[in-house]
Amino acid sequence: MGLFSFGYDSFMDKRNVDTLLEARWIIPVEVEGTLAEHAIAINNGLIEAILPISEANSRYYSSNHIKLDNHAIIPGLINLHTHAAMTLMRGVADDLPLMAWLKNYIWPAESRHVDTCFVRDGTMLACAEMLKGGITCFNDMYFFPQAAADVVLECGIRAGIGVVVIDMPSAYASDVDDYIDKGLAIRDHCLQQPLLTFCLAPHAPYSVNDQTLTKIMILAEQLQLPVHIHLHETKDEIKNSLAENGVRPLMRLHKLGLVSPNLIAAHMIHLTDTEIELFHEYGGHIAHCPTSNLKLASGIAPVEKLLQKGINIGIGTDSAASNNRLDMFAEMRLTALLAKGYSDNAEAVPARQALRMATLNGARAMGLDQITGSLSPGKAADITAVDFSSSSLSPCFDPISHLVYVAGREQVSHVWVNGRLLLNEGELVTLDEADIMQQARRWQHRLVS
Amino acid sequence: MGLFSFGYDSFMDKRNVDTLLEARWIIPVEVEGTLAEHAIAINNGLIEAILPISEANSRYYSSNHIKLDNHAIIPGLINLHTHAAMTLMRGVADDLPLMAWLKNYIWPAESRHVDTCFVRDGTMLACAEMLKGGITCFNDMYFFPQAAADVVLECGIRAGIGVVVIDMPSAYASDVDDYIDKGLAIRDHCLQQPLLTFCLAPHAPYSVNDQTLTKIMILAEQLQLPVHIHLHETKDEIKNSLAENGVRPLMRLHKLGLVSPNLIAAHMIHLTDTEIELFHEYGGHIAHCPTSNLKLASGIAPVEKLLQKGINIGIGTDSAASNNRLDMFAEMRLTALLAKGYSDNAEAVPARQALRMATLNGARAMGLDQITGSLSPGKAADITAVDFSSSSLSPCFDPISHLVYVAGREQVSHVWVNGRLLLNEGELVTLDEADIMQQARRWQHRLVS
Repeated sequence: MGLFSFGYDSFMDKRNVDTLLEARWIIPVEVEGTLAEHAIAINNGLIEAILPISEANSRYYSSNHIKLDNHAIIPGLINLHTHAAMTLMRGVADDLPLMAWLKNYIWPAESRHVDTCFVRDGTMLACAEMLKGGITCFNDMYFFPQAAADVVLECGIRAGIGVVVIDMPSAYASDVDDYIDKGLAIRDHCLQQPLLTFCLAPHAPYSVNDQTLTKIMILAEQLQLPVHIHLHETKDEIKNSLAENGVRPLMRLHKLGLVSPNLIAAHMIHLTDTEIELFHEYGGHIAHCPTSNLKLASGIAPVEKLLQKGINIGIGTDSAASNNRLDMFAEMRLTALLAKGYSDNAEAVPARQALRMATLNGARAMGLDQITGSLSPGKAADITAVDFSSSSLSPCFDPISHLVYVAGREQVSHVWVNGRLLLNEGELVTLDEADIMQQARRWQHRLVS
Repeated sequence: MGLFSFGYDSFMDKRNVDTLLEARWIIPVEVEGTLAEHAIAINNGLIEAILPISEANSRYYSSNHIKLDNHAIIPGLINLHTHAAMTLMRGVADDLPLMAWLKNYIWPAESRHVDTCFVRDGTMLACAEMLKGGITCFNDMYFFPQAAADVVLECGIRAGIGVVVIDMPSAYASDVDDYIDKGLAIRDHCLQQPLLTFCLAPHAPYSVNDQTLTKIMILAEQLQLPVHIHLHETKDEIKNSLAENGVRPLMRLHKLGLVSPNLIAAHMIHLTDTEIELFHEYGGHIAHCPTSNLKLASGIAPVEKLLQKGINIGIGTDSAASNNRLDMFAEMRLTALLAKGYSDNAEAVPARQALRMATLNGARAMGLDQITGSLSPGKAADITAVDFSSSSLSPCFDPISHLVYVAGREQVSHVWVNGRLLLNEGELVTLDEADIMQQARRWQHRLVS
């Protein structure tokens, strides 16, 4: 026995961890239910253990021991469909249908203004909003993805970056091959980055031709990459596809071999029973975007029916130009509410299911469910803390119900990604909010002029 | 010229007012649009003037001169349908249809627990939440309305108190006449209170018989009181009315003479074209409750169609037991979104209309549009300030769009009712939030046991 042994037996038995996090409630999502008065031990970016507070204190110690007495700890929220940089166009045009909105406002603004700098500043603004709102991972699709990837690495959030492809030249790329080459070069450059994964991101069936989609399909299989695409968002998309291709978009994608467990289809509103069967049989995933779907009057997705069929559905905000928040609390709540009203069934999408959709289901769609999306030993410490101490959350009979139906993103107090604290008592750790807002003002003036 | 005259000419010309309030934007709602860099002069509880800041500073002075450089000033929000005391049952049972929720959870809990003290504590909790969320007036329906009225007077919010009537004895009243007598006695006692108005509040067509409804109709005409009732909330309500009365509920009310400009009908989801015509012709008002309608799977109201017909529609939260927030920002946003998705028209309920519904339309339904609901000289100073300085509200191309689609109640910084400051920099002035939460915890334990 050495110098420090006497009286330190229990201390010496304890393991040192990077962070020891106590909370009133831990909601793992991995298993159903709520753990009261538990702690999470975090080490080397991973969740080492989840255990009762008393046991945690006898097994672990940490110089970073955090007690969140009025908080629920949940897996970081996963925003399964967004265009982060477009946050600079938040509210630039409202109360318009999808194609009028795109053709008269968004596309002209993009062609005039979008460059590396726009994407950098816009993604930074989006990351600030998402981190403050408890989002730890987002699935992005936009031009100049290198700029988005750079921001992700700088601020420490997790993201799936889209290798965007569209049959339309832009300031970013001259043709389809250019889009693909540039995107894959970024991926090659970032292969060692644990926070970054990549999707192939053909914009939509109406903006990408068969030849391109076939290339994407082959690449997806070769590189084992998810394919992230807008699909069955509007009735017009389907009508035009029938006129031009003699087939509805989902069937066209299926014939080209794209409906598979690699597919993340955003929106998926207008679906026949046959299409739902097919999508389920071939294992595709859906990014449900309820606010954007309503705001652009695209429609209401049959979420309850899709879930009952067994299709995996995550939730996305879409961009701040058609939402106009990047707020997964709002989307989670709207998902639960809208499914009930639409399916005439108040038991549709109960709170626990909405929370799972906003976390683990999103991770599964992105192929990241071994890494994130729930609180489970061995997974990355992607964690959000929600403060229940406001009178607006009183009383509380069930914290999971409150997370979905009562809490707002304003209750998010702390966020960790890969074990790193990125939001501390509501303050961003890795991003300069004042600077971000100044850049947003600068772009606002440019966009208006 | 006296002692203080020299150099004070402009000062001597100025009028002293209780409060001079400068803001980046003032959105009067009374007239459309946004006034940049304007001020409001408030005196004796009333709005004296709205004018450019420079002009305000030359015409008025005040020892209470407030500058809100990053804020939008709007009329206080009006919650047109709620049961404030039920906030103590926030989230006590979720994911259930209306009648199962009422019969198995809410009514048993009410029969065991509801008394003066419950209503007092619950209404206090609700007022805290509503004031923090920018609501300056609510239209209430619940047992023991004297307790609710007392809380309103204590905290300084404005309310329409329901003289609740239901064909069911309760701890509060033994029969219909008892409900009416007790309610009207409270009204008589409060006739001189400027913050209190009263409605006759028969609970619903299925819980109040023809004889009672006739009494209510006569009283409403005699006393010129609004009638606040749940109406056409569920398909079952209509089916049962057809079975029991041979007529749908709205037609039954019409035959009894209740459809008039005095009528505030909450929910109004399931309506035929003929019913819409009739309701419009007879001048009824609607309290639209989009969250509650979805959560209980009651359905989606045809808001766009009703508005186009010219029917006056305000917005309500319903109770925190079926919402589970008393959040008019959330309801305003959902109203605008849901109308678009439901009517297949992205131009339905644009932001400015949603804001008007949440303010002036609610006042009109309550018969208070000469007093509140918009910012206009001579009206009461019922005012809400919304802080736009978060990065989550950047950039901002149109503050009205942001109020509806981006801002949340967490951005509310100041609230005045009748010129009195009730929320100051997010802090409640007249209510003790810690005490309110302690009472909520006490009731939570009782309700669970």
